[in-house]
Amino acid sequence: MEVWVGISKINKYATSESGDTVEVVERPNGGLSVVLADGQSSGRGAKWISTLVVRKVITLLAEGVRDGAAARAASDSLYTERSGKVSATLNILSVDKQTRTLVITRNNPATVLLAHNEEIKCLDEPCLPIGLYRGTRPMISEIPLETGLTAVIFSDGLIHAGSRFGHSMDVTTSLQALLDEEDPSPQMIADALLEHAMRLDRGRPADDISIVVLRVTGFSGDEVRRMTVRLPLGE
Amino acid sequence: MEVWVGISKINKYATSESGDTVEVVERPNGGLSVVLADGQSSGRGAKWISTLVVRKVITLLAEGVRDGAAARAASDSLYTERSGKVSATLNILSVDKQTRTLVITRNNPATVLLAHNEEIKCLDEPCLPIGLYRGTRPMISEIPLETGLTAVIFSDGLIHAGSRFGHSMDVTTSLQALLDEEDPSPQMIADALLEHAMRLDRGRPADDISIVVLRVTGFSGDEVRRMTVRLPLGE
Repeated sequence: MEVWVGISKINKYATSESGDTVEVVERPNGGLSVVLADGQSSGRGAKWISTLVVRKVITLLAEGVRDGAAARAASDSLYTERSGKVSATLNILSVDKQTRTLVITRNNPATVLLAHNEEIKCLDEPCLPIGLYRGTRPMISEIPLETGLTAVIFSDGLIHAGSRFGHSMDVTTSLQALLDEEDPSPQMIADALLEHAMRLDRGRPADDISIVVLRVTGFSGDEVRRMTVRLPLGE
Repeated sequence: MEVWVGISKINKYATSESGDTVEVVERPNGGLSVVLADGQSSGRGAKWISTLVVRKVITLLAEGVRDGAAARAASDSLYTERSGKVSATLNILSVDKQTRTLVITRNNPATVLLAHNEEIKCLDEPCLPIGLYRGTRPMISEIPLETGLTAVIFSDGLIHAGSRFGHSMDVTTSLQALLDEEDPSPQMIADALLEHAMRLDRGRPADDISIVVLRVTGFSGDEVRRMTVRLPLGE
């Protein structure tokens, strides 16, 4: 098997800092975790919060702390730091090499989409963002890693795209159309969803948008780990 | 301008854990840092060391600590933890959005290659790995970010490839041949260098090999940040 992750991210129009933070980190026993946090409001304050949350989570994950415990620690930590006045959404997507499972941690009202081949399931049990109450717990799903598995997590900028103009994005339908195509790469899926959202926002995103797509494919025989990053710096 | 990073990484033949650790982290004021550490020896012990070093560095960078200070802190920390008995090499490659420079930090006898368009320069001033002495200082180079700039950092597995068989890799010549081609992507360069090394090692790498290639290109008008990750999990 091989795991492929594609991440696409854009700032709210005319802001230089995104309130979303996404980091990918290696897990102590192999595997990887993708951590996505969206801080309340936008700009510098939101960035400070989402960075705090993601840092806390990846430090704990790197020490071997389980995903659920890391999410609870990040929540208590933000609650203590900001006296319950500031919230953040948090998603963790982990490939655990030891248990050969995908672990999905949600402290985000936004749905997580999970597909086995073309069949999409929504993970949408009610759950709270972190930081508002002491002892907020995440929703956790653990799924065996198998070829054809796709998971999609995103910040709420994606769902609200176009709402200023009376439209809104049906992410499930968009994903279904993409999965019906010939084996799209996760980066293609993330890019296509983001493009759709930006069209609905008429090219000026009303909020920060981050999309993470993970797919499991068959093993090609190539043992090389790879990571490609693109960072636009403007004119 | 746009910054593109390509990373390729393989374990020593028949080991399940790499002694190299590479992480990419967002900097507090935009930009990014790539941190590469190679722990002494191989396997689990080496992994533990390189993880400790990279964690220390990225935690400090995320707090806004400058690259040189982060490298010195990682060295003192490893020295204290292991009483000067264990070393690690460390490279940091940072895109600083505020100063619009590329900051290259070396605590690694292995050369760093830097190219302006096709003209390659070797950064090879003598420097020590971290962890062996108190107060080890890194070599730091700061270069204005401009289109056509390429930087290549790697762990010493790349240089020693083939040495069992009486061959060795001339990384500069290989890079020159690649840069003479039509605008290769950093991922293509990293993959081609790794493939060359693996051929010299007859398909069984004698050491962990990690290669990081960073290129600066013209701005395409597309504001989306992207990250793609591939993690092979075997059969």
